[in-house]
Order: sequence, then structure tokens, then C-alpha cells
Amino acid sequence: MENGEHVVGKSVKRVDAFEKVTGRAKYTDDLCGKEAYVAKILHSTVAHGIVKSIDTKEAEKIPGVVKIVTCFDVPKYYFPTAGHPWSTDPAHQDVADRLLLTEHVRFYGDDIAAVVAENEVAAAQAVRALKVEYETLPFVLDVQEAMREDAPQIHKTFPHNILKHTTIRNGNYEEASREPGLTKVEGWYQTPTVQHCHIENFICYAYMEQGRVVVVSSTQIPHICRRVVGQALGMPWGKVRVIKPYIGGGFGNKQDILYEPLCAYLSTVVGGRLVKLDVSREETFVCNRVRHAIRIHIISWVRKDGTFAARKIECFSDQGAYASHGHSIGAKCMNCFPQLYPCPHIEGDSYTVFTNKSVAGAMRGYGIPQAMFAMESHTEDVAKAMGIPSYQLRFQNVMPKGFQDGFSKNVNYYDTFRECMERGSKSFQYEEKAARYRNQIGDIRRGVGMAVFWYNTGVWPISLETSACRMILNQDGSVQVQVGETEIGQGADTAFAQMTAETLGVPFENVHVMTVQDTDITPFGLGAYASRQTYMAGFSIRQTAELLKDKILDAACEMTRQIKGNMNIVNGNIIRTTDGRMLMTMEELAMEKLYSLTNNGHLTAESSCQIKNNAYSFGCTFAEVEVDIPACRAEVVDILNVHDCGKLINPSLAEAQVHGGMSMGIGYGLTERLLYDEKTGRPLNNNLLDYKLSTFMDHPDLRAEFIENYEPTSAYGTKALGEPPTCSIAPAIRNAVLNATGVAVNEIPLTPHILFKRFKEEGLI
Amino acid sequence: MENGEHVVGKSVKRVDAFEKVTGRAKYTDDLCGKEAYVAKILHSTVAHGIVKSIDTKEAEKIPGVVKIVTCFDVPKYYFPTAGHPWSTDPAHQDVADRLLLTEHVRFYGDDIAAVVAENEVAAAQAVRALKVEYETLPFVLDVQEAMREDAPQIHKTFPHNILKHTTIRNGNYEEASREPGLTKVEGWYQTPTVQHCHIENFICYAYMEQGRVVVVSSTQIPHICRRVVGQALGMPWGKVRVIKPYIGGGFGNKQDILYEPLCAYLSTVVGGRLVKLDVSREETFVCNRVRHAIRIHIISWVRKDGTFAARKIECFSDQGAYASHGHSIGAKCMNCFPQLYPCPHIEGDSYTVFTNKSVAGAMRGYGIPQAMFAMESHTEDVAKAMGIPSYQLRFQNVMPKGFQDGFSKNVNYYDTFRECMERGSKSFQYEEKAARYRNQIGDIRRGVGMAVFWYNTGVWPISLETSACRMILNQDGSVQVQVGETEIGQGADTAFAQMTAETLGVPFENVHVMTVQDTDITPFGLGAYASRQTYMAGFSIRQTAELLKDKILDAACEMTRQIKGNMNIVNGNIIRTTDGRMLMTMEELAMEKLYSLTNNGHLTAESSCQIKNNAYSFGCTFAEVEVDIPACRAEVVDILNVHDCGKLINPSLAEAQVHGGMSMGIGYGLTERLLYDEKTGRPLNNNLLDYKLSTFMDHPDLRAEFIENYEPTSAYGTKALGEPPTCSIAPAIRNAVLNATGVAVNEIPLTPHILFKRFKEEGLI
Repeated sequence: MENGEHVVGKSVKRVDAFEKVTGRAKYTDDLCGKEAYVAKILHSTVAHGIVKSIDTKEAEKIPGVVKIVTCFDVPKYYFPTAGHPWSTDPAHQDVADRLLLTEHVRFYGDDIAAVVAENEVAAAQAVRALKVEYETLPFVLDVQEAMREDAPQIHKTFPHNILKHTTIRNGNYEEASREPGLTKVEGWYQTPTVQHCHIENFICYAYMEQGRVVVVSSTQIPHICRRVVGQALGMPWGKVRVIKPYIGGGFGNKQDILYEPLCAYLSTVVGGRLVKLDVSREETFVCNRVRHAIRIHIISWVRKDGTFAARKIECFSDQGAYASHGHSIGAKCMNCFPQLYPCPHIEGDSYTVFTNKSVAGAMRGYGIPQAMFAMESHTEDVAKAMGIPSYQLRFQNVMPKGFQDGFSKNVNYYDTFRECMERGSKSFQYEEKAARYRNQIGDIRRGVGMAVFWYNTGVWPISLETSACRMILNQDGSVQVQVGETEIGQGADTAFAQMTAETLGVPFENVHVMTVQDTDITPFGLGAYASRQTYMAGFSIRQTAELLKDKILDAACEMTRQIKGNMNIVNGNIIRTTDGRMLMTMEELAMEKLYSLTNNGHLTAESSCQIKNNAYSFGCTFAEVEVDIPACRAEVVDILNVHDCGKLINPSLAEAQVHGGMSMGIGYGLTERLLYDEKTGRPLNNNLLDYKLSTFMDHPDLRAEFIENYEPTSAYGTKALGEPPTCSIAPAIRNAVLNATGVAVNEIPLTPHILFKRFKEEGLI
Repeated sequence: MENGEHVVGKSVKRVDAFEKVTGRAKYTDDLCGKEAYVAKILHSTVAHGIVKSIDTKEAEKIPGVVKIVTCFDVPKYYFPTAGHPWSTDPAHQDVADRLLLTEHVRFYGDDIAAVVAENEVAAAQAVRALKVEYETLPFVLDVQEAMREDAPQIHKTFPHNILKHTTIRNGNYEEASREPGLTKVEGWYQTPTVQHCHIENFICYAYMEQGRVVVVSSTQIPHICRRVVGQALGMPWGKVRVIKPYIGGGFGNKQDILYEPLCAYLSTVVGGRLVKLDVSREETFVCNRVRHAIRIHIISWVRKDGTFAARKIECFSDQGAYASHGHSIGAKCMNCFPQLYPCPHIEGDSYTVFTNKSVAGAMRGYGIPQAMFAMESHTEDVAKAMGIPSYQLRFQNVMPKGFQDGFSKNVNYYDTFRECMERGSKSFQYEEKAARYRNQIGDIRRGVGMAVFWYNTGVWPISLETSACRMILNQDGSVQVQVGETEIGQGADTAFAQMTAETLGVPFENVHVMTVQDTDITPFGLGAYASRQTYMAGFSIRQTAELLKDKILDAACEMTRQIKGNMNIVNGNIIRTTDGRMLMTMEELAMEKLYSLTNNGHLTAESSCQIKNNAYSFGCTFAEVEVDIPACRAEVVDILNVHDCGKLINPSLAEAQVHGGMSMGIGYGLTERLLYDEKTGRPLNNNLLDYKLSTFMDHPDLRAEFIENYEPTSAYGTKALGEPPTCSIAPAIRNAVLNATGVAVNEIPLTPHILFKRFKEEGLI
């Protein structure tokens, strides 16, 4: 923005701040007409079985009941739920294993019938009045037990319940591990099933209009949702319209298609009437998606100098009952291993395995928080075993500057890992604290720990990356911006407005972002996942802003007779670059262009952009804990994340994003876990009273710092920040506890129950 | 559409038929949140005066009252209300004579205060509790009295209350009228004040979002509304967003900006809260717009052979209290005179004059129904005076083929007038009936009458004509179409879909028209008026469809390796034109393009189009009446309209359009008139009980026929049909009554009151 003020890089106020603070922002439920029918779902009360019959007689008698649909009624179009871009190659399509309602029940909570009623009370009563007869089948809850020969088979086409198995065979692990003088370090690490716990539960409503189905949904991925609803209903995709209003968080749960297809279907069976499906918190925990619990086994063969001679990893990812995102999370989990600490001889196996539990899907970090817990716990264990400070071990082995991944073509353009570590260590006074807390005794002990992570931005080259954008010039020189990428609470709209203002040369307040996506109108975009949006949308925003700017300067050329090459737009004015003179305001230009009797035109621009670039995102966490050994309680007393996500578009929003991720990471490390009854498979704590969600009360001040290495592949120098903040928190806490107590706890969350068991084993209590 | 099926010209079902028939279509009130505050307006109870004070004390005490705003509080931004495109030339801008609320009251019903309350009851009570002190001023209700020296002056800047006076001086009227042997025929003709009486009264609601004002309104002209709201509130126009849902009729009343600015303002003074302003039928009659009552004086100097030697016309158009559409309706009324029956020596004067009555604005026909009543009554009178059959007089004098108007450049490319007359005469058995009913006696007599009209399409070159369009390709090969032109009940969306399907080569059912206009997103279009939409939007639809088709064929070229020139889209398939082979479906193409990992893109197209073309629209009416002389009642027993509106896009919808216009014309001729108390200026019958709206019960079967002369300037051969059907009904009825009874009635509606007076004068009773 030649001579103009930069807005990219400034902490401008969120565009939706006022609406959200005052409660005036309209969410899905606010928009749904009061005349809506209410739909409720009957969930199975067995973990595995076949529905033999559903007696609807009593339910049908309840006044206000409009329609009851059971698993025996629904169309048999199998569909996938994963929020991935479609692939025209069947081999790369997601597993289509869902029906709207199922006769073969695969987890406690599976969907077997639905009631549409005039009101919520009638719907709830009718659901309770449905009588289901099951043929129960044996079930399995543990990921490795599910792989046994004698385990119950959950899906016919997947023997041993293995959804997919991928391998890494770099170099020759067996041979390399026989190098003399190596130390073998081995560990098993277990992460828990957790839920996203966004504030707004999943909700949607549907109705028919002009022979099409309209779904208004709290989704991260409206354009993908359109496709899946089409598949599930056997309708041409253009007959489906999806609208996404403001949404109250998603964290990946709303990157799956949850009940949009069912709700749409229910509308079609009641003549296209408006039907609302509002999911309770209890259902959200069980019948939406959860984070994959992954059990990871690592063996490292380490030389005395702390270099790795050979390494082995095995990941067992608990998929739950349906494929959802399939193996991609398990694969991503394993595949970050060889890149974090490069080693020529690596053997890896990752299994994604069905169990009779809630379905695991995308959740902030997408396999990386699990991977980082295992790998960075293991790094600490290696350091301990080798007698090398773990900071030094990391510093020496971590991905070097210039590293390029063979598959993704990601390049580490800077020595960011080490920059982040150095900044964090200094800022956290890590060495001083480590020294201070060495050799503590007593009941209350402190310790510091750290962990690093890397993350990548978007999904290319595994899947399509594309973004599209449209801009519309108003009479006052302000513009609207439309993108398919979604504001889900993270501040994306504000970043989009900043980028638009920057490239177009107009004041930030003159950019109006269309926050509601509507698949009929909004340019095609993939939505909020894989921390892709600021990076990916940036390409089409810049490209489209340049197109619009070009049209504006063409018009300026007509009106001022100056050559285009001598003009620019700065702060909303057309200026002559040769002397800086203001030739006309954008308002003057827009008015003349729109209302000209000789050469009228409406200036708009639209373009789409395929992105075949990639970018690593880096960072690390430093944590200080205080452990009350008799009480078996660990508390985080200080914590710092350092991130390199490239150029910060909006530093305040970036910091807020990091704070949120850190909070989620603390819950992951210390308190959160969804439990199942071993005898029945019933979820035990699917509510916010019994599930210990990390809150404000559990945190110290959350500290965030940034290294701003301008990402050279990016339209605005930026890269992933959405998921990264949550990736390295849990292992840093675990390592701090280890350093405080000498006890390595290889299973999170570090609840008193688990600490009690480990402290007892290690003789501390 | 080479080898494909044509959809333009077919009577396909309306795209919104199901929604409207089932009551499921969402109108403004359906969409307004239940949490809305309710606004009500206090209207003046004097016809002319100054508000000295408004005591709000009692009103403020009423529970639920949130805010009271009076004429003393509102900002002083004068704004125009006419739904015309903006002009950057101040000389061509509409008269800005309105404030949100006014201290200077100019008609009984003027807006002086508004209440915002939590509910309708509180708002209504508070309005009644406001105490107003007026200084009353003398008022004037008659248009010619208002021009007198001693008349009260209604607007300071307009002496003699003349808003504008325009003249025609062709040839030399004075000299030409002295040609020997001429017969002078002179008449005064008076048309009434009538109201549009659309089903859905005006309604809007407004709220603030992200610092901007959003107005959802039942308007014909969303993009113009945005501009006027901006002007009225002194806000940059880009800070205003206007959304137009389905609307229940407008007929021109909603081509003025009615209460959108006030409603928007009221939202701003209650912190941006949602405020609804729903206007009652009683207010609609008085405080919206009415049709100009025009008094017209015509003198014709006629040769024995029935040709015109010299003619003179004077029009006195009753504007009511504010300028609204200004003089344009009065000017249009007069200016059709020289074109209908060309004559070298014409003198014309048209005056648009303020009176202390409801504001006159646009109404279906825009001055032409008034003009046609006077001119075609006069033609009948001339025929009678000259002893020439009126059909023959018209046939001989009416605008000839090849006629071009000097100002508008309209060309009569066919001899349409005579074609329509011949078709109508034959179909109606006009001559036979005329002969049969000659020389009737007795109380009940029948007669036939006819009248012709012309109309022009759109507003060029008086104002800007432009349209813009955007199309979006879906995965299934279907497309969305967005235009700024509005569906207001007439079937525009269906015509737009047909045009799109035709040019793009896709099946009609694969075109999805975005019926809701949203000024933030919808391409700029001017809206529904001047019977412009099918003609004007046609240009940008065709242009945009061709752009999209071009992009599709580029993609087809990539995928099939066939040269573009050898391919076409037919019935939704890409075909090779050389052998007619189907190469791929649009769905296959769209899927591959959208999801390609090598060359992805979202295919959309957008373009705007300035239209500097014009088109006449022609037609005539034949009416048969039965007159009950003692009862002074005339009844239409048969009626036929013949139209040439070029190529019919959808014959059934065209016929329905004509039926609606004929119904409106029958009311205009026979029953409808808004009355004012001469002593107070108070409207007397502003409700649907006392105002005799023409209904189904008052009509015979309405007959419509068409001459389809393909309009050469048009994108699809079509031209104006929205307003034309209402233009020649009233004079045809009046002429039929004349032919039945020998009594010329020069004032409509032909109510028993008026017939009684005339029959008495002529000695029939």
C-alpha cells in the first residue's frame, strides 16, 4: 500500500465485536422461525446390536407428534460425514458408512429413530415412548483389543476393525538399531477421548423452497455440507442450499456433517415444513464427534551424543464407531514424527481402528496434540535416559532450517524452531527455574517442562486447496467482501477485512465482510479447518482485490485521463503516484461509474484461486507446575507459548487465538476425559458437570509471544495459527511434572486418579 | 439454443408458484424477529399548518413506550422519495422536499411524530396520547385553484404551487387552426385520485449491524432505497443495506421510498435495536402514494377527411403535498399525445401542481392511463363530431409504421397499432356488435367502445438504464442467477430463469433465481418500474449467460480437447456441434472443474450492461357494456385487450399480467376514487369498505390476445407488458357507455353518482 497506512499487522477491533458483546449477533436458533417443527432423535441404549423392531404406537398417540421416522424408513444412500473437499477419484473419497438412521447400532448413542413434533415437549415425550427391541452383539471399547482376531467386527468390510493402516519405512530401522553403543529408550503414551465443548451446541434447521432443501446450520463448512446433504438424500447437490450464520465455536466438531442430512430429510417428509434440530449438550458429547484417543508406542535408539540412530513408532487411533475423517488423523499423527526430529532410519505403523464408542473426528490439532504428547514426552524421557538437558537435545535434533518434506513439499525457510525455543527460554527464565527446582524434596514441588510442535497449513497436497472471493464496490467507495471461508469465532472476518483494505487501498472501516455464507451465493470455499483460512483465503482476497483495483484504475483512467501506471489507490483516494496528488476520492469515482449516462457499470470482481503451496507453522510451550504430591494434584502456575505463524495480520486476535488454544491444551493435559462404562459402553460423564472442562479458574495468566518470520509462500506472509496453540501444552505440563517429581506419567489427563497410581508405583506416596 | 428445446416462449410454471400457493413464501413480516420494537406514526389532523408543539408527557408514561421522536427532533437532511436512478447532475435530481417528520404539515395525514414501543398496543396508545398544537393555514384541494394567485403556497420555492410546467410547441398551432373548413372539437377530461391497493401493505423493519443500518423492506427498488435511506440519514450509502424479500404487490407505490428512512432512523435512536414499521391499510391510502388525478383539456381542429390540422392539450396534474416523482408523470402524460396521432401543429402545456392532498407518485401506467382516458375519449368525441366511425378515425390517424420519436428515439418497427386493432376487432366482433347496438331505446342498453394506447419500456434517455447479473455454476450443472430487478408478484423471476436457461442451454428446472435482493450482494439493478425489467434485465442476463457459457466451454475444451468453436451446451450437456455427439454432461464438467487437483476453479460470471435502447409497447381495448339507465349503472359484460409486447417469454404469465391490469383498469373506469372532505381536507374513504376496489365480482371473463412482433432492439425480443394492460381500459368503457347511451361522460370513475348527473343533464332520466 504505497504511501498508505498499513492495516495488515494492526490490532484493529474485530468487525463483529459489538454484535457479539451486546448479544445482538444472530445465531442459528435466533434466526429459526417460531413456527418450526421440532425434531428429536432416539439414540440407542446398547453399544452394539441390531434393531429388531421399533414400536411407535404409544408415541404416535402423543398430541403434537407429526411424524415418526425409524431406521427402517430412511433411504439407503450411504454417505461420508468428513468435512473434506470432495475428490473425483473414488479412491480418495471419504468412507461412506453412514445412513440417516441405522438398524445396525455401533455405539451407545447411535441414531435409530427421529420424531418431528409441533413442540419440544411432544417431541421429547414421543422419543421416550418409542419401544425398541434389540438383538445385542458383543462390543469392544479398547483400540488394541478391537484389532484382535476374536473381537466383534463393527463394519463388514473392515477385518480386525482396521479402517486403515499406513507405514513409514525410511532407511533400515532393524540394521540401524544394531549400531553399537546405542541406548534404547521406549515408551507407551496414551491420550484420552475428549470433546470440543464449543459454547453453541450443534443446531440446524431445514425447509423446502422452490423444490429445493434449504439448511441453516451451525457448521464450519457450508459448501461441503451442501455436498454431503445432497449425497445423503440422493439429491442433485444444486438442489441443496446451506446457510451459515454466526456460530458459537466449532473446533473441528462442526467440520463434520452432523445432523444436517437428517434434518433436511425430516423436512422433506413433512412436506417441506420448517424443522429444527437442536442438539443437547449430552448428545453433543456422545453423538457428535470426539478427539481420537491415540495410543502411541515409540522406540528410540540414541547415540551418546544425543543423535538418533533409529526410531520406531506405532500409533493406534481409536476411531469409534464410524469412519468420519477416516485415517487421515491417524496418518497425520504418525507422519509428523520423521519431520520433527529427522532421522534416516525410521519405521512407523499407524492403525485407525473402529471401536464401539462415540465417533472420533476432527478436533483442533487433528492428530498433532496426540502426536506431540507422545513424542515430546518421549523426547524428555530420552533426555533423562541420556543425561542430556532436554532443551539441548531438542535444540540439537529438531528440524533444521532448509528442511523440506518430500511429500508435502513444506519448507522450513527459517531456523524458527530454535528461534522460538530461545525466545521462550529467555522469556520464561527456563534455565534459571530448571536449576532452581532441581533436587526438590517435600510434599509441594515445582518443576518446569517444555515441548515443541510443528503444524502445517491446510490440506494440500492430500486434498484440494482452493479459495474464491467476490468484492462489490458501493457508491461511497466502500466494498463488500464475500468468501467461502467461515468466521466461527476466531476472528477470520476481521483478518479478511484487513487484507482487503490493505490490497485495495481503502480504509479498514470501508470494508464490509459478508459474515453469512450461503452456498447459493457465496463464492466456493472450503471452510474452517486445518488452520487454512487466513493463509488460503488470503490468496483469493489479494487476487480479487487486485482485479477490482485494476477495474477501478481503468475507470480512473477514463475519468482523469492520467495513465493507469501513474495511479494508485491510497486511503480510499485515487492518487497520482508521480507527485502524490489526490485526483479523486473513491466515492467520486464510484458514483460517476455507477450513474454515468455515457459509460455506466457496476464495479465488482470475483475470482477463485487454487493453492498448491504449503507452510509449516512452528512453536513451543514452556510450563511451570506445582505438584501437591499427597493430594496427587498438579497445577499450572505459569505457561508461555511462542509461535511462528508468519506475519501477524492482527496481533491482538492472534494472541486471543493462542490463549484459547492454551486453555484447551491445559484441559487436555490435566482434567478432560470422556469416560465409558466398561460393562455397557455407556458414556459416563457426557455433561459439563462431570466432564471437567478447563476453565478460566484453572489457568494462570496465559502468555503468548510471537516470532514473525514472513512466510514467503503466503499472500500476506501469514500461516497457520488456529490449531497450533493447543499442540504442545499437554507434553510441556507432563514434562514439568516429571521434572518436579521424577515421575513420568505417560497418560493424560494428569488427574489425581492417574497421579495417585503413578506416585504410588514410584514410591512417592 | 442450437438443437435444444426452447424455454423462452413456453408457459412453464412460475418458480415461486408452490411457495405462494401454499402460503410458505416468506414476506417481510414473516421474517421480522418477534423481539422487534414496534413503531407507529402520528399523522397530522389538519390539511395545512405548522406544528407549534407536541406534548409527549402522557405518552411517555405508557408502559412499554421506548422512545418518542417528534418533528422537532429529526435531522434536517432533505431527501427525495422518487424511485428514480440517481443523477450526478443536480439539475436532474429529484426534488428533495421531505424530512423524516415535518413541522410544516402539508396534508391531512402528514407525518409529525413517531413512537417506538415494546409492543403494538403501547405504540398505538402512545400515538393517541400525543397532544399536538397546530397553527392552521388555509389549504387548497383543487389543482387549478392551487394555481391561482391567492392560493395558499404549499412549498416556499414553488410560486403558484407549480412544481413544473413543460410545453410542446410543434409547428404553428394558431396559424394551422385557422385553416378553412376545420371542425373544432374540445373537451375537458378528469381522472380521479386512486390508490394501488396491493395486497401487502407497506412494511419494513430495520436494525443496526457492524455499525451499519440494515433495512428489510417490501420495496420494488432495493438499490434505490439504499441510496435514499443514506441521503435521509446523512450516512454514506455503503453504510446502508437493504434486503427485499417476497413482496405482495407494489404497482408503483413501492417504487417510492415510503417509511424505510424513518424506520432506519428509529433503529439508530434506540441503539440499533430491531424496529418494525407496519403500515395499516388506512395509512396506505393516505400516507403512501396515490395516482395523480389529472385534468386534461384537448382541442382538435379536424378536417372533413378526419385528419388533424392542429391540436392543443393542457394537463393539470394534481401532485398532492410533496414532489415524489415530480413532474415526470405529468410530462409523460402530455408527451404521449403527439406520438399517438401524429399531427404537425401541436401546442401543449403540462402543469404539475401541489395541493394539500395525499402525495401522488408512480402507479401502473405512470401518466398514460390518465392520458389515454382523455385522448381516447376525445378521439371518440371527434369521431362522433365528424360522423366518422371511431375505429376508422383511429386506423387512419394512429402512429404509422416507421414512426420515430425525436426525443426517445423509439421506433415503431411494425404496423402494430393496426394489427392489434384488426385482431381485436375481429375477435371481439366489434363491428357486428356496434351495428347491433346502434339506435337502442329502453332502460337497459348495450354498447361497445374501444381505445388504443402506447407505452414505452424503461426510462432511457430521461434517466439511466442499466442492469447487472451474476451466475454461479453448481456441482450438478445447475446455476444460480442474481439480478437487481425484483420479483414483486408479476412473475419476473420466472422470466429471468427462462432467459438464463435459453442462453446457457440448461434445463429450466436447473436455474435457481435468487428472489431476495440484498444490496450488499445483489448486482446493481434499478428494480421494478417503467415495465422495464424483462427488457432491461434481459440484456445483462444474456450477456452474463454468454460469459458463463464461454467459461464452461473453455473448461470443456481443456477436458475434451475439442475446439471451442465446435462445442455448444444443449439441454445441460456439452455437445459437439459437428456431429451432435454428447461429450459430457454439465454435471461432469462442473464436478471436474470444481474439484480438479490440477486446475480447479469456481465458475461464475458477472456483468453489467448499460441500455441505451428503447421500445414502444402497443395495444388496444375493446369493451362491451350494459347500462341500466334508471339505476345509473354501467356494467362491463365483455372485454378484450390485444397487446404487442414483442416476443412472449411466458404466455401464461403474460396473460395473467394482462388480466391483472385489466382488472385495475375496470376499477379505474367504474368504481375507484379516493375522496376528500372539502371543508377539512380529510380523506373520506381510505379503507377497503368505502373505497370500491375492483374485484373479481365486477368483471366478465377477461380476454387477452397478443401480436408477437419480435422487438429487434431486445435481448429476447420482448418489451413492456407490466403497465400496458391498464392503459386503455377506462376510455374503452367510457366510449362503450357513450355508444350505448349517447352520453359522453368525461370524468371517471363512471359511478352512479356521476352517471346520474350526466344522464339528467342529457335528459335521459
